[in-house]
Amino acid sequence: MQNFTFYNPVKMVFGKGSIQQLCTLVPAGQKILMTYGGGSIKQNGVYDQVKQALADRTVIEFGGIQPNPRYETLMKAVEICRREGIGFLLSVGGGSVLDGTKFIAVATYFTDGDPWDIVAKFAPAEKALPIGCVLTLPATGSEMNNASVISRDSTQEKFAYFNPGNFPRFSILDPETTLSLPIRQTRNGIVDAFAHVMEQYMTYPADAALQDRQSEALLLALLDEGPKVVNTPTDAAARANIMWVAAQALNGLIACGVPQDWTTHMIGHELTAFYGLDHAQTLAVVMPAVWQHQKSAKAAKLAQYGGHVLGLPPSEDIAGQAIQKTEEFFRSLGMKTRLSEYGIGAEKFEEIGARFEQRGLKLGEHGAIGRKEVVEILNLCQ
Amino acid sequence: MQNFTFYNPVKMVFGKGSIQQLCTLVPAGQKILMTYGGGSIKQNGVYDQVKQALADRTVIEFGGIQPNPRYETLMKAVEICRREGIGFLLSVGGGSVLDGTKFIAVATYFTDGDPWDIVAKFAPAEKALPIGCVLTLPATGSEMNNASVISRDSTQEKFAYFNPGNFPRFSILDPETTLSLPIRQTRNGIVDAFAHVMEQYMTYPADAALQDRQSEALLLALLDEGPKVVNTPTDAAARANIMWVAAQALNGLIACGVPQDWTTHMIGHELTAFYGLDHAQTLAVVMPAVWQHQKSAKAAKLAQYGGHVLGLPPSEDIAGQAIQKTEEFFRSLGMKTRLSEYGIGAEKFEEIGARFEQRGLKLGEHGAIGRKEVVEILNLCQ
Repeated sequence: MQNFTFYNPVKMVFGKGSIQQLCTLVPAGQKILMTYGGGSIKQNGVYDQVKQALADRTVIEFGGIQPNPRYETLMKAVEICRREGIGFLLSVGGGSVLDGTKFIAVATYFTDGDPWDIVAKFAPAEKALPIGCVLTLPATGSEMNNASVISRDSTQEKFAYFNPGNFPRFSILDPETTLSLPIRQTRNGIVDAFAHVMEQYMTYPADAALQDRQSEALLLALLDEGPKVVNTPTDAAARANIMWVAAQALNGLIACGVPQDWTTHMIGHELTAFYGLDHAQTLAVVMPAVWQHQKSAKAAKLAQYGGHVLGLPPSEDIAGQAIQKTEEFFRSLGMKTRLSEYGIGAEKFEEIGARFEQRGLKLGEHGAIGRKEVVEILNLCQ
Repeated sequence: MQNFTFYNPVKMVFGKGSIQQLCTLVPAGQKILMTYGGGSIKQNGVYDQVKQALADRTVIEFGGIQPNPRYETLMKAVEICRREGIGFLLSVGGGSVLDGTKFIAVATYFTDGDPWDIVAKFAPAEKALPIGCVLTLPATGSEMNNASVISRDSTQEKFAYFNPGNFPRFSILDPETTLSLPIRQTRNGIVDAFAHVMEQYMTYPADAALQDRQSEALLLALLDEGPKVVNTPTDAAARANIMWVAAQALNGLIACGVPQDWTTHMIGHELTAFYGLDHAQTLAVVMPAVWQHQKSAKAAKLAQYGGHVLGLPPSEDIAGQAIQKTEEFFRSLGMKTRLSEYGIGAEKFEEIGARFEQRGLKLGEHGAIGRKEVVEILNLCQ
């Protein structure tokens, strides 16, 4: 096991009816900017619950934060925060709204230079507005970490960054708010959480007995509960389980002391930037291809996953079977797993590979995936 | 799943050589009280490492905190804190030293009334000295929670309490410090962590798919790694795993939204108070007896544990087999599992049962274990 530091101060408030706790969780005496997305919260009753809980507070609204939240949009909110003296940000929506809100929190105080540098160059941003979260879409895990993924239209870029000031003070997870989610978001959320676990697990054995078992716990819960919410969207118990799994999948715990990969996410971000595929759609396509390409480097963990999670008996090609079963799991949820199914050909593969070279990035737990390997992996995605 | 709030702000600093990080973790400008136990830290080099890391700080020492830390001893440290204007408490040792230090932290500011009320009557104690921890014995999980267990000689009482101010600011876990642990403490630590998981898991199914899998992850890691450290005390990788498991076993995570039991601990505390048995010795005796007594109420979870953790095939008496296998696991570590092996007879059983009645306590996840049932369970311990 490698040395590590684990610190996660997010207060998680979970359960039916918990949105009403906003009145005590949001500090009094602060002007609040309430951020949200395309307005689904006005259909499902969440908007009304939030406004009711904060009836005696000063709340300014900022809607329209997109999936893959855009720098250009968020900077408009930053202007409002500066102009209005906002003291607290309340994100109401899914991971994209929350990621965008995290950027607003740090960009508001970043006045020396271009706030895009926080995202693209990890520029230090020590001061941040405090954030609270009402989550309505389990997927990204942003509700229990200090990470954020922001896109920029003008440069077709999409990057993840981390900032110590970006831990939400609290996150309210009421699984009832997820009962009306469309199937596409439901399915995307399951695949996203699954991929988050895998990026921290599917590497090589590192004498981390508990972290491996904890990752496997998350995967087993996703395999059990994922099909339930896809097949019976009104299954409240399964919705609750999926919501808690997604929060736990990227809160730092299973990353303690182990190597990580993130190749699938890095290549997936490019596919979203170039083609506009949903984040999870890219993951379901890229992950099996990365594993196929790295099959011998990941052989031991693929076998462990096959045995502990999929219940496969030991065999010569247990790694291959584990890859196949995973692709089958994605397809059973209704996800496509090939670029060709989205009508995407090989035209941009070289350009995507070149981007990693230009950024000086080598991917994977061994840093062994460069320009050439990225193109090879993309070809396996077809 | 029940509604819940999860909040755990302890910074966990894990790994070889991490004690030297004390110099940045302990806030500057505060007078420090360094607490420890019987002095084993002076043999294993931990004392020297701590003193070196804090060479430029003002450190007052308070040694001699016992296993099952005593109110009477701790109140002497409280006097020092008040007299010397201590600003930070640094606990160096195992869970008993840390539990004692937690009590010192709240008792120092508790000047209206008897600080024992914090323990025995959950008297509110809002102000607390900040605490840091250097852990040398993985067992209690105190390093990652706000709980503490304190004993009082004059009344032969031992109680657990919780206080929001008792989360350590940080806990340093260097598994190298555990390589020289005597076999008795090593074994006790494994059983203690195992029992902590079980008190939060072995109840009834509550639609908590992830929490169950996370509990099973901890149990699987203990079953795999426990025998390694008992048989090969110098196995550094296994020592590290056990240390991380013990911290995770009682940090609130697996308790999220599920029923809890704690009968084994409650009865065990009485056996320690009356007979001076080690805490873990009482757990290994009482737990199988509680399960035997509650076999039908716990049937579903005993079967789940048998299948998921012990790998037992489905059968009519899988619950009975699970109980037997657990007792065998304790014995394989060298733990006794019957009171008669400690030369303890039934003389005090009625008195112990009566204590719960006097306190108005009904134990267990259904509140179904009272005076009569406690005595029945104690008889099963023989």
